[in-house]
Amino acid sequence: MLKNLPNEVKIVEVGPRDGLQNEKMIVPTEDKVKYILLLGDSGLKNIEVTSFVRPDRIPQMTDAKEVIESLNKTNIKNNVNLSCLIPNLKGLEIASKLGVKEIAVFSSTSDAFNKKNINSTVLESLNIIQPVMKEALKLDIRVRAYISTVFGCPYEGKPKSLDSLKRVADFFVKEGAYELSLSDTVGHGNPKEVVSVLECLEGSIERKRLAMHMHDTRGLALSNILTGLEMGVSTFDGSSGGLGGCPYAKGASGNCATEELVYLFESMGISTGVDINKLKEASSFVLEKLERKSPSKFLQAYKG
Amino acid sequence: MLKNLPNEVKIVEVGPRDGLQNEKMIVPTEDKVKYILLLGDSGLKNIEVTSFVRPDRIPQMTDAKEVIESLNKTNIKNNVNLSCLIPNLKGLEIASKLGVKEIAVFSSTSDAFNKKNINSTVLESLNIIQPVMKEALKLDIRVRAYISTVFGCPYEGKPKSLDSLKRVADFFVKEGAYELSLSDTVGHGNPKEVVSVLECLEGSIERKRLAMHMHDTRGLALSNILTGLEMGVSTFDGSSGGLGGCPYAKGASGNCATEELVYLFESMGISTGVDINKLKEASSFVLEKLERKSPSKFLQAYKG
Repeated sequence: MLKNLPNEVKIVEVGPRDGLQNEKMIVPTEDKVKYILLLGDSGLKNIEVTSFVRPDRIPQMTDAKEVIESLNKTNIKNNVNLSCLIPNLKGLEIASKLGVKEIAVFSSTSDAFNKKNINSTVLESLNIIQPVMKEALKLDIRVRAYISTVFGCPYEGKPKSLDSLKRVADFFVKEGAYELSLSDTVGHGNPKEVVSVLECLEGSIERKRLAMHMHDTRGLALSNILTGLEMGVSTFDGSSGGLGGCPYAKGASGNCATEELVYLFESMGISTGVDINKLKEASSFVLEKLERKSPSKFLQAYKG
Repeated sequence: MLKNLPNEVKIVEVGPRDGLQNEKMIVPTEDKVKYILLLGDSGLKNIEVTSFVRPDRIPQMTDAKEVIESLNKTNIKNNVNLSCLIPNLKGLEIASKLGVKEIAVFSSTSDAFNKKNINSTVLESLNIIQPVMKEALKLDIRVRAYISTVFGCPYEGKPKSLDSLKRVADFFVKEGAYELSLSDTVGHGNPKEVVSVLECLEGSIERKRLAMHMHDTRGLALSNILTGLEMGVSTFDGSSGGLGGCPYAKGASGNCATEELVYLFESMGISTGVDINKLKEASSFVLEKLERKSPSKFLQAYKG
């Protein structure tokens, strides 16, 4: 039990994108930039900083271009791999001109979720993503792919089979994604399902190229992550301070707080490269701007 | 991974005792009794209902005798194993006269903690407990033993070795405790330490006689419990609604919410015998009396 754990794990910070886009209040551009710089100072090596989505649908991300322009004037790129979420070729064109070296693309395993979110079925969304991935790779831009609703969908519930997951995963692998992030969009997953999902993808992709993006809606995020860790996953997404909440359940947790990930791993002697106190400073900075407390009980207890 | 899990687990509900004794507000006796009856209705088979401690130190438990007398007038004992915490012979005498069939005794692995809590070293406390256990067994009363601070002490931090744990565990086993509950008093533990603790007790007691009593202060309670489950532990303590908070860290979680335990196990097909919606009714009832919300994010998200 827990005898063959890795010496280190990779943490992907998604607070500035997945966190802030689910917060009601819009954080001013200069504060976002400061927040991202603080995240970089904490030792995080991978940060998803924004997304080029429709401002009328996600007003929180309207300043995507300005955020990247501001970051380009700093030294953060020397130490940190910055990425942004790209839904289409137009977004890719802007990102590419800004010198972005990594993008994230996304689809889900559920037609109902895809329809509600981006008004296309899973298959239709893959048809939109395919040319984006091809063009990105041509431009020497790395592509990370998210698969949402892997463990359940807010509209359709638990998946009836893992066929859709396997199809979407195979698509992303074939099209050249270097990493697949398996998302538990509303925290439906449990440890046994983590085992099933990872076993289902056994022949599709090496486990070290998988990431887990777990929401803590039902409190099982860390248990699921521990299970993935034991099975050889070593990349995990987190949102500093637990930013983001859950748009589907009032008062509920959304993203797993990055600090909780760091604490789980570091307490077991697994290096994350992150200074948890500095990370907490970054979270506190942005939480103050959002005029809210962290939803993470851990952070309320953690004294540094 | 997770292939040889048990079909069922035993849940020990400690909300009426460990939960309520750490709440500032004192719940009236008749509401406590109603709360305990609701807990029994939810399918819980083991409930620690009160403790015979000094009223000047723990005023929340002043009505220990009245609570048991009231419960004795109901049918709950036909279905539920009721127990109470007993610190000394005087308490045992009262409990025995009230027909109590199970008691819990406690010590810890840390002299500092014992001193602050009951003004005696670990060894001194065991000398007080020994005649209590002997007398209880003579009266055909079952004895459950708690060991506090197994994973860390609020005053001394992490244990330097597991020697004290082994000594205290061996004492309780020798004196006839039928079950040992390993308590993570301030939520210091991590999954690797769960492995070490269980391995340390390998020769002392069968794993099926161990219970885990994990606090969620740092968010790792369920991860620790999952690890214990995989290693053969099948008894877990919880406090309905996450009652109790943490006296050592303001705003932090204390006891792991029983609902979270039930959800973790049932979601993986492991039977607890508990109806989570009825359990939530019991928690809601007492939380209303306490004029507070549950600290459990799970319960805020859980819609039944």
